[in-house]
Amino acid sequence: MQSYEEMSKEQLYELQEGLEKEYAKYKGMGLSLNMARGKPSAAQLDLTMPMMDTLDSSSELVATDGTDCRNYGGLDGVPEAKELIAQMVDSKPENVIVYGNASLNVMYDTVSRSFTHGVMGHTPWYKLDKVKFLCPVPGYDRHFSITEFFGIEMVNVPMKEDGPDMDLVESLVSSDETIKGIWCVPKYSNPQGIVYSDETVRRFANLKPAAKDFRIYWDNAYVVHHLYEDDQAEILDILEECEKAGNPDMVYEFCSTSKISFSGAGIAGLVTSKANIEDIKKQMTIQTIGFDKINQLRHVRYFKDINGIKAHMKKHADLMRPKFEMVEKILEEELGGLGIASWLNPKGGYFICFESLEGCAKDIVARAQEAGVTMTPAGAPFPYGKDPKDSVIRIAPTLPTTEELETATRIFVICVKLASIEKFLKNE
Amino acid sequence: MQSYEEMSKEQLYELQEGLEKEYAKYKGMGLSLNMARGKPSAAQLDLTMPMMDTLDSSSELVATDGTDCRNYGGLDGVPEAKELIAQMVDSKPENVIVYGNASLNVMYDTVSRSFTHGVMGHTPWYKLDKVKFLCPVPGYDRHFSITEFFGIEMVNVPMKEDGPDMDLVESLVSSDETIKGIWCVPKYSNPQGIVYSDETVRRFANLKPAAKDFRIYWDNAYVVHHLYEDDQAEILDILEECEKAGNPDMVYEFCSTSKISFSGAGIAGLVTSKANIEDIKKQMTIQTIGFDKINQLRHVRYFKDINGIKAHMKKHADLMRPKFEMVEKILEEELGGLGIASWLNPKGGYFICFESLEGCAKDIVARAQEAGVTMTPAGAPFPYGKDPKDSVIRIAPTLPTTEELETATRIFVICVKLASIEKFLKNE
Repeated sequence: MQSYEEMSKEQLYELQEGLEKEYAKYKGMGLSLNMARGKPSAAQLDLTMPMMDTLDSSSELVATDGTDCRNYGGLDGVPEAKELIAQMVDSKPENVIVYGNASLNVMYDTVSRSFTHGVMGHTPWYKLDKVKFLCPVPGYDRHFSITEFFGIEMVNVPMKEDGPDMDLVESLVSSDETIKGIWCVPKYSNPQGIVYSDETVRRFANLKPAAKDFRIYWDNAYVVHHLYEDDQAEILDILEECEKAGNPDMVYEFCSTSKISFSGAGIAGLVTSKANIEDIKKQMTIQTIGFDKINQLRHVRYFKDINGIKAHMKKHADLMRPKFEMVEKILEEELGGLGIASWLNPKGGYFICFESLEGCAKDIVARAQEAGVTMTPAGAPFPYGKDPKDSVIRIAPTLPTTEELETATRIFVICVKLASIEKFLKNE
Repeated sequence: MQSYEEMSKEQLYELQEGLEKEYAKYKGMGLSLNMARGKPSAAQLDLTMPMMDTLDSSSELVATDGTDCRNYGGLDGVPEAKELIAQMVDSKPENVIVYGNASLNVMYDTVSRSFTHGVMGHTPWYKLDKVKFLCPVPGYDRHFSITEFFGIEMVNVPMKEDGPDMDLVESLVSSDETIKGIWCVPKYSNPQGIVYSDETVRRFANLKPAAKDFRIYWDNAYVVHHLYEDDQAEILDILEECEKAGNPDMVYEFCSTSKISFSGAGIAGLVTSKANIEDIKKQMTIQTIGFDKINQLRHVRYFKDINGIKAHMKKHADLMRPKFEMVEKILEEELGGLGIASWLNPKGGYFICFESLEGCAKDIVARAQEAGVTMTPAGAPFPYGKDPKDSVIRIAPTLPTTEELETATRIFVICVKLASIEKFLKNE
């Protein structure tokens, strides 16, 4: 396979001509395909339909502590839901607050509360001249949207193969007291699918932040979202590691069943130290009379425990894995050895992270859009939507059908080739 | 019936002696009764159990606009849920955002957003030296908790028999640009059960606020919560009146199904102008990927429309009315003509507002507690928990069984008598 860099101008022009024809053919088909969104497919959601039969009019809607789940109360969740969330993230029920819907609203809420009322008695952030968050990049656009919305300055930290660049994290966090947080997706990171190593987790737990109200925002979104039954990542329990390191209050861990049961109609958890929980409950008692406890019961009685969730996630994996593998196969067949792209083949999560030549990502996404394939906007995985190299593209294979996904990927690789050729031709 | 004021010291002592014996008898019973909480009874919640059969694993969980309610999306609610909420408050679906759980979280969210990001482009409240809210009193303690939590100064406005003192409201709102809102429960107000007259609603709609970001926080919590089939209050649609008055954006209306279906597991609505909705959605898109649309479907498919809700609320009324009437009967029999108490007999809502002699409310509540009857803390219906006259007590008759309620009320009236006698004896 000859790399594009080695090709002559003539060869590139010839290649371009053929590709333009292929591209035009697809464009003429008036397609509308979507590889942008980290949403489960309809087939995945079908897996959870039996949960709808779990509760009916004859059910005792009473929690194990006697709470009538039909009535007000139960601010921080019913005991069995705390237990289920705790099992998901390998923690303890007394460290769990159960929220509703999904984890995004919990993260928003956590930042919003810190802004308006501060963290455990520390100055509310709105009173501070500057608040900063570290943002491992590429990362999750909705994290960055929250911090941007609250005027928090975001500082990029490069991702390495076992997590964020911890030398940089340690040095920044220990020297700058305006740094109040860092966004992390420790397992099957969004979008790279990177798994934090034990050393990375331990270095996080042992941070010596200059800011007393510094917290690690540990979004364990894909904790049980493995693609391979026999190759599952495990990460250390950050809460336990923080306790061991004498930093028991330094982490807020988030998780939800949104990509396990129903997206946006699941239950979510905030997992943290008891001291943080007491602090947070002071606000919750003003904010709400409690989240939907009936939905908590529905989830617990359907899944029963972590084993139920694991068995269920295996079924998700069986639907998702062929899609990931198909995309990876096409990428390899079409782009392998050309020297114009690299990507990671994740073992879990919802995304494939694709890296083009510098300065090509926006061009590729625009070309794909023109041919009817919607990709996540280039730049989205970076704070302020600015990818310094304009090279990262997040591919989300889950939502389309396999057929749609194949067509979309074939169009995508043509766009990658065309954009790359154009770059080489311009540079000559 | 001789009033206490006309009694001699001797008569009062004699009365006191007999009452103390009665009181001691009850105290010896080791009771644990509760008239504090505006919660539906188990029997009321049983009414909604058939809703649990509305959806099952064979249901098409697709909204009328094609939205798959099992997946992310549908930020502001599915169309049929907007329609249902609109029918509840006599508004239009395009004026509705559907939230989850209950309305308290929507109100918190609304104040929190105004604090952090301002109202329709106006300065966020955190940047202002002072923000004030008008608080008709007595009112709902959880409203006051929210504004207190955000450091908003609360200004008492007396309630009259047809709503807040509008002369005072008009004069304050038009002259003070730090006044950014007023808390209202326009129908069957909490705790008095007062219904705002058409004139009151129109005067609200015609306010000329000094603050451009002034909003009426119209908590229509008891919009369909009538006690009497043949004597139902109707109030004017505040949104329509505001439009007519050229103040289309001046109101946020809140409602929920929390005391219709299941408390805390219902759906809630924010009803307001399209301009406000656009403004709010800018924040929501950062905050959440959407609320629980499956629960929205469940509610709509069970109740179908406002007529379904009305029929359902009649069943609630049939359970609640005898409780209210029993309390009112005991109050009348035991306290009528004594000149030591007054109360209102509401036509809807969740409370009976009781007024003792000045300076007696805390004493009464403490005595009741000592005999095993928990009342809402005296002072709770006022900002900062401070009842200037120490005379208002909120009675919540819904949660206990009829038997418990009768005992609790009988103990309560003894406490009222004892506290009143003590006041007269001290004053002599």
